[in-house]
Amino acid sequence: MSLEETIRDLALRAKRASETLSALDTRTKNAWLERAAARLEEAAESIALANARDLEEAREKGVAEPLVNRLALAGDKWRDMLQGLRDVAALPDPVGEISELRVRPNGVQVGRMRIPLGVIGIIYESRPNVTVDAAALCVKAGNAVILRGGSEAFHSNQALGQVLRAAAADVGLPEDAVIVLPTTDRAAIDVLVKLDHAIDLIIPRGGSALVRKVKSESTIPVIAHDEGVCHVYLDASADPEMSVAIARDSKLRQMAVCNALETLLCHRDAAHTTLPGVLKALHEDGVEIRGCERTREVFAEARPAADDDWVAEYLAPILAVRVVEDLDAAVEHIRRYGSNHTEIIVTRDYDNAQAFTRRLQSSVVGVNCSTAFSDGFRLGLGAEIGISTSTLHAFGPMGLAELTTRKFVLYGSGQLRE
Amino acid sequence: MSLEETIRDLALRAKRASETLSALDTRTKNAWLERAAARLEEAAESIALANARDLEEAREKGVAEPLVNRLALAGDKWRDMLQGLRDVAALPDPVGEISELRVRPNGVQVGRMRIPLGVIGIIYESRPNVTVDAAALCVKAGNAVILRGGSEAFHSNQALGQVLRAAAADVGLPEDAVIVLPTTDRAAIDVLVKLDHAIDLIIPRGGSALVRKVKSESTIPVIAHDEGVCHVYLDASADPEMSVAIARDSKLRQMAVCNALETLLCHRDAAHTTLPGVLKALHEDGVEIRGCERTREVFAEARPAADDDWVAEYLAPILAVRVVEDLDAAVEHIRRYGSNHTEIIVTRDYDNAQAFTRRLQSSVVGVNCSTAFSDGFRLGLGAEIGISTSTLHAFGPMGLAELTTRKFVLYGSGQLRE
Repeated sequence: MSLEETIRDLALRAKRASETLSALDTRTKNAWLERAAARLEEAAESIALANARDLEEAREKGVAEPLVNRLALAGDKWRDMLQGLRDVAALPDPVGEISELRVRPNGVQVGRMRIPLGVIGIIYESRPNVTVDAAALCVKAGNAVILRGGSEAFHSNQALGQVLRAAAADVGLPEDAVIVLPTTDRAAIDVLVKLDHAIDLIIPRGGSALVRKVKSESTIPVIAHDEGVCHVYLDASADPEMSVAIARDSKLRQMAVCNALETLLCHRDAAHTTLPGVLKALHEDGVEIRGCERTREVFAEARPAADDDWVAEYLAPILAVRVVEDLDAAVEHIRRYGSNHTEIIVTRDYDNAQAFTRRLQSSVVGVNCSTAFSDGFRLGLGAEIGISTSTLHAFGPMGLAELTTRKFVLYGSGQLRE
Repeated sequence: MSLEETIRDLALRAKRASETLSALDTRTKNAWLERAAARLEEAAESIALANARDLEEAREKGVAEPLVNRLALAGDKWRDMLQGLRDVAALPDPVGEISELRVRPNGVQVGRMRIPLGVIGIIYESRPNVTVDAAALCVKAGNAVILRGGSEAFHSNQALGQVLRAAAADVGLPEDAVIVLPTTDRAAIDVLVKLDHAIDLIIPRGGSALVRKVKSESTIPVIAHDEGVCHVYLDASADPEMSVAIARDSKLRQMAVCNALETLLCHRDAAHTTLPGVLKALHEDGVEIRGCERTREVFAEARPAADDDWVAEYLAPILAVRVVEDLDAAVEHIRRYGSNHTEIIVTRDYDNAQAFTRRLQSSVVGVNCSTAFSDGFRLGLGAEIGISTSTLHAFGPMGLAELTTRKFVLYGSGQLRE
């Protein structure tokens, strides 16, 4: 078979599996999750070998060590992956849940029932634990999943996929619920995103180039997990201590994630009072400050910021800083340069808190807390498949419910329309 | 300016308008709706002239009279259109509504706030009242709208668009909230569906060829309003009188709509008892019956059905009829040949009602009522922009809420993640 035929065939197998899965009881889906965790433990050694092969090949290719580390499936990452399966088993099944069930004037009961989306294609890079995490959530929500990981994690992903499928066979879940594409050919993506008769949703997770490519070529609906240029705005009334703590947590907790702080904005009335302390703390923590002119007046260590800095997703110990006239200017800046991801205001002013959270159209907007709360677990979704930067269907962190849709259910007793 | 430049420019104007609109108070949006209705009344004469020109040109081109009638903007259609504007004004504004507001263990309040989608492009055919209906709903939900109607209603659509924009200027709503494309060039669609930097959603309403074209070419998310091959399944225990009433209402109330009955399925145990009476009634109402072999055994007037009949959206006085072994076979038939639109079971059996509504993944599934309830007004949405056949974001009838999305809002008091 050609590459195209192979992928088409796999997608149709996933579609058939999704038909069975859509009506599968929660007990079987949970049994699969538990069994997969147990089987992964049993197969730890062979997976470690596959993973070692990926690491070795990456080093041979001269991949930078921090990126090689992202590929490693050991220690905490391994334990978290297994625990993740058991955590997803413990979550309530969204499928079949009926909400908004109301009686219409004619007596027909109308409600909305959650149903799976069908087949979900996930295109991702680097970390092989995504293979297990994503499969767990998609299948728990009643979907079949087609996984296309990066070539750098090929052997690990294949080994993980085999275990997930074997666990499916053990418990009577269709094996084709989880398909890991058996190729590293980039042309596979081009084929995959055109199979709209078999695949219902494509989620690209990775660099902006990948996301853009998928969005422009896919004939299947796409929910992108793209970059985050996240802002914290220190209002005139911001508490200085809280400002330091929120800026530090937002910037330093994890720097290479999409919800990390990238640009700090500050009201001009706080530029001489609150801002220097915040920047001093970050600078001492090793963060390079790139400021506008007014920032450099109050913090001499700041380097001059260029226009590019306002749109930069550094994912690194660099922070862009700008002093703005007022809340309007902060909102304007975020709208113009931001990526509609996560924006936080630090303020004691009620009206400004209201205006900031209402006027910005980003996926997460908040008052007096860290940008790091932009995360499915922290927001109470119970799990997270990623953070959507697409507005349609699911905007921001996505949990199990976001991997389903809703149909209308009508319970009548002979009603006619006329 | 070239066609492409013109459309690009209009889309950017819509985008700017949408930024103002997203934060606009409900009062101004409602004032626009009321003012638009009043201005339409005042402009009745000039709109009637524009409409007459469309009708004349259609007749000159030899368009069939039923299609010409769909273009006419008089009588009930005119009154319904004006009343529609006032009804939308009376609906609650979905924008800013916060749901699921919960306190997380660390004290951060997390909720989900409805926000507009941005700019919505609607591509439709024939009926010019869609121009007003769609604009009303999109703008009430805080979106700007770009309308691309059919060439056969060009003059009517232009006249209606001018009135809607003049009403906007009257009340301080941005005029570019409503843009009716000033061209009948089909190439305009090709340009429009690629403007993903300015447009957030494309809704194609019309023939399957149009919908397919838009889905395959658009780089903007698409919610399709495609065909409905709707089913009624008469279970073994179906009440005979109710079966006749539901089949008649589903087929005859309006035949040229997507929620009309197209295929009737019947359990073999009801084939000799319930089915003949149902088919006799429909046949007497002028419906041509195309049946499977077993149907023709119990109803001699039936013509033989071919395979094509199971996938046909007749929109006409023709009905495909098939006798099936049991509920499983009915579900299997609907999955195989249906379009996931609207499916109804007539039954007195509790288990079968449960199985039918749970197992089918169509946008509307129901028990003992007419397919004609698959409609935003009847389902209690208060309005309807159309019936989505796309699963993502909105599946089935779409109201105001479906023209918005949700962002997360966080109200903290200094919380950090660690």
